[in-house]
Amino acid sequence: MTSWLPSLKTTPPEEGYELAVKLARIAVKKTQPDAEVREQLRPKYAEDADALIAISHVIAIHFATVAAANDHWK
Amino acid sequence: MTSWLPSLKTTPPEEGYELAVKLARIAVKKTQPDAEVREQLRPKYAEDADALIAISHVIAIHFATVAAANDHWK
Amino acid sequence: MTSWLPSLKTTPPEEGYELAVKLARIAVKKTQPDAEVREQLRPKYAEDADALIAISHVIAIHFATVAAANDHWK
Amino acid sequence: MTSWLPSLKTTPPEEGYELAVKLARIAVKKTQPDAEVREQLRPKYAEDADALIAISHVIAIHFATVAAANDHWK
Amino acid sequence: MTSWLPSLKTTPPEEGYELAVKLARIAVKKTQPDAEVREQLRPKYAEDADALIAISHVIAIHFATVAAANDHWK
Amino acid sequence: MTSWLPSLKTTPPEEGYELAVKLARIAVKKTQPDAEVREQLRPKYAEDADALIAISHVIAIHFATVAAANDHWK
Repeated sequence: MTSWLPSLKTTPPEEGYELAVKLARIAVKKTQPDAEVREQLRPKYAEDADALIAISHVIAIHFATVAAANDHWK
Repeated sequence: MTSWLPSLKTTPPEEGYELAVKLARIAVKKTQPDAEVREQLRPKYAEDADALIAISHVIAIHFATVAAANDHWK
Repeated sequence: MTSWLPSLKTTPPEEGYELAVKLARIAVKKTQPDAEVREQLRPKYAEDADALIAISHVIAIHFATVAAANDHWK
Repeated sequence: MTSWLPSLKTTPPEEGYELAVKLARIAVKKTQPDAEVREQLRPKYAEDADALIAISHVIAIHFATVAAANDHWK
Repeated sequence: MTSWLPSLKTTPPEEGYELAVKLARIAVKKTQPDAEVREQLRPKYAEDADALIAISHVIAIHFATVAAANDHWK
Repeated sequence: MTSWLPSLKTTPPEEGYELAVKLARIAVKKTQPDAEVREQLRPKYAEDADALIAISHVIAIHFATVAAANDHWK
């Protein structure tokens, strides 16, 4: 089985952001493994300003981690 | 008794993420030791978008710690 | 296609703040790709104190990352 | 009088987690010194999923600090 | 035009805290550029405990960044 | 006038925690300078579990900063 997270290294920075998005989403899957339930929740948060901001918040934390792992792509 | 947290070292990164999930859950057990009460709360948060995002947030913070402990698996 | 994030390097610090704002907004676009829906949500959060503070929070986290990437513009 | 926080050093990591829990609780005592009031609040948060997640969040931040103080127990 | 953020360097620490307050406020201005709307929102958050705590939270994150930029004024 | 924040250095760690509490409170004073209003808000948050947890959260972030400023009192 292929790992979903072989490394935190990304090139370029843009891919690091994509990885942060992925890291935020995986947590939801692990807490709610039922894809159908997650699908039902989607309209709720995708059209709710507070939820969108909260998701952006989680991504920000993961992006900080990924950026550190890549020496901020210096 | 075996320690539930012998080390923050994990190989590969994927296991670091699992450890972050565990670190987030342990806190809940320590505040609400009654397994039955926790089980009753589960449907509440597992089907609530805001709660799922909040859990993802906590995991993100622990993942940052675990990643730092592993030199970001460089 | 031009990358929306070629680097985290900015000069001067003020541009680093702008980048943090951008990083916070991109996450919302990725979760809600429909521009029309995002436009409808805008009055909600732009006139809501709690949402404005929450957005400021996300920007603060990204600003920390951008500042670190620029050695805090020392 | 013995200090409640002589050091951030802990051995093993598990004790570092306990210290993080303690650091989170002390703040509540300092803001609400009345033990009776705190006791009345307990059922509220111990049976509320959102509150339990929020507590887990605070512990995560303190755990990051304690882990850093211990060089992540490397 | 003078930059509103020429540097993150401050002397003494107290000014670093002021800068953190400023960094938190700028984000609100960027999301809600209409000064009149912001003025209308002010009573809402200035007399609301939750909002005041949330603002304090954002300032805390910026203060961490400013402190790091100043080597914690060591 | 004496500075309210001459330094982030504290001995011992316990005083660092006190400083974190102070740093969290100052932000509230700066946003709501009217002592009477703050006094009216106090019962609200001092007897509200969610608010107490949120305050503990802000203190946790400042404690991380103060601990870093003191090399974690190593």
